[in-house]
Amino acid sequence: MSLGEFELIARYFAQQAPRADVRLGIGDDAAVLDARADRKLVVAIDTIIAGVHFPEQLSAADVGYRALAVNLSDLAAMGAQPSWFTLSLSIPTSDERWVEGFARGLFELAREHDVVLVGGDTVRGPLVVTVQIAGWVETDRWLTRGGARPGDALMISGVPGEAAGGLATIQRGMAETPAIARLRQRFVRPMPRVTLGRQLRQCATAAMDISDGLLTDLDKLCAASLCGAQIDVETIPKSPDLAATFDETTCIDFALSGGDDYELLFTVPAARAAELAALGCTQIGTMTSDRRIVCRRNGEIFQPRRRGYDHFGEDRS
Amino acid sequence: MSLGEFELIARYFAQQAPRADVRLGIGDDAAVLDARADRKLVVAIDTIIAGVHFPEQLSAADVGYRALAVNLSDLAAMGAQPSWFTLSLSIPTSDERWVEGFARGLFELAREHDVVLVGGDTVRGPLVVTVQIAGWVETDRWLTRGGARPGDALMISGVPGEAAGGLATIQRGMAETPAIARLRQRFVRPMPRVTLGRQLRQCATAAMDISDGLLTDLDKLCAASLCGAQIDVETIPKSPDLAATFDETTCIDFALSGGDDYELLFTVPAARAAELAALGCTQIGTMTSDRRIVCRRNGEIFQPRRRGYDHFGEDRS
Repeated sequence: MSLGEFELIARYFAQQAPRADVRLGIGDDAAVLDARADRKLVVAIDTIIAGVHFPEQLSAADVGYRALAVNLSDLAAMGAQPSWFTLSLSIPTSDERWVEGFARGLFELAREHDVVLVGGDTVRGPLVVTVQIAGWVETDRWLTRGGARPGDALMISGVPGEAAGGLATIQRGMAETPAIARLRQRFVRPMPRVTLGRQLRQCATAAMDISDGLLTDLDKLCAASLCGAQIDVETIPKSPDLAATFDETTCIDFALSGGDDYELLFTVPAARAAELAALGCTQIGTMTSDRRIVCRRNGEIFQPRRRGYDHFGEDRS
Repeated sequence: MSLGEFELIARYFAQQAPRADVRLGIGDDAAVLDARADRKLVVAIDTIIAGVHFPEQLSAADVGYRALAVNLSDLAAMGAQPSWFTLSLSIPTSDERWVEGFARGLFELAREHDVVLVGGDTVRGPLVVTVQIAGWVETDRWLTRGGARPGDALMISGVPGEAAGGLATIQRGMAETPAIARLRQRFVRPMPRVTLGRQLRQCATAAMDISDGLLTDLDKLCAASLCGAQIDVETIPKSPDLAATFDETTCIDFALSGGDDYELLFTVPAARAAELAALGCTQIGTMTSDRRIVCRRNGEIFQPRRRGYDHFGEDRS
């Protein structure tokens, strides 16, 4: 019996370095994996769709990278160490060149984080990519969105808004400057904060990753923690590349409401904020006891222009 | 901040009985699950798309049921006990009635097998449903497609071809008779053979589930086991409902080449065939040492009309 074209394509996904804890990988009805008695299993699933979660013109390699990155980011937000992932790839035609590029971007990031693909399903259909990731976290403690307490320092990794700025420059077809090139790179190649997540596991009271924008995601963290927050807008790290490309108001909009950063948003007891600042994180506010989120700028109440960046109306869990 | 419509819909997926080994379920960045030191973790992923894997007119409840059933079937084929699953649901509009039906069908089967949904992603897009399932198998032995040996008995569960016959009656818009109603039910509500898979774990030399058709899937089992098979066509269980609906040649075509049965195809040492027959399984042939699949009928070589049922050209792994 001849190999189906999609079976041929699936071979691109069989080219990877092994992991010692994979007893049986791709190619059977399921994968068989070693479990760890001293850990909890952590699993997340995320789907990305062209025109919804990324612009159609993104390269195949960037789509492959992104599909894994958004899932690694979920495990980072739990303080977990990622191990394996499965892939469902629905593509309209068996375009081998596209798949080759997709696999290249995917495995580039996979190698970086020592995670391996252990199962997949390649089907003919609209372009929809789903990755499900699994990893491990110590049994004593993991990070959730709940657990922040009034008085905790509200902190972030990275510079918020750069990814959204980069996306905007793509969508508006802006001519590339060095600053724009760097912003686009921030959108196209987000860096999941797995190492930071592991460091936060023992000290953060709550954590999540920023995918839908700082304010939108902070609202979810506050809801899960049954508290509120005050943000001091002037303490948010400013991006020279955003400042070189957009006016000040737009820069603040991107920082507060732009999505796709895949940085971590977390809270720590106030006494530990300095320790986290030494790791390159920034305190941008304080958790409060009422359920509101209040932004302040130079001592005044600041009303963000666009409160939440609700991407395309989807929910991410 | 108001709830997105898709967030409202996601609430349909939060209504289920808990499982003691779920530390943190739906609603955070990832789920946290108890691992078993005495077991291997088994994971599979499968995607179904309207118009590709099932006809557009299938009810929402049947789509929900099917998305989980095809994955349970993969774990059955490994001899594993399913525990949890994650869901990615891409739907064009937030049609609450559809989602309610989908969740109903999904959870009906989930309850039956005591598996729970631990994470999900609901996005706006074309109708594409991906389920990833995880479960456990004892560390000493699990089932794979490889391992069949020449002389082993080739066996199946159930009556092959009924699901494909049922699908054909839907596609051809045939008027419903009692026989046709039963055939459609076999297509619409396949029963994953999890219990049988557990029983086979210790005795089967190879196993897989039949999703693409008996001959197509047997070819995969033979390839993985580096051997061939002889099928005695007259020993294949005959379906009275197929016989009441289609001519004899068509019935044989469905039995040999029809997909969607989600029964188990497996091999056991010849001495154990009777034991499996007592469990309701049927020996339909014998494994051979050359790499060919030969069908015989009443002592003569039989040439199947349609060798493989290659659904829509997709690969399933």
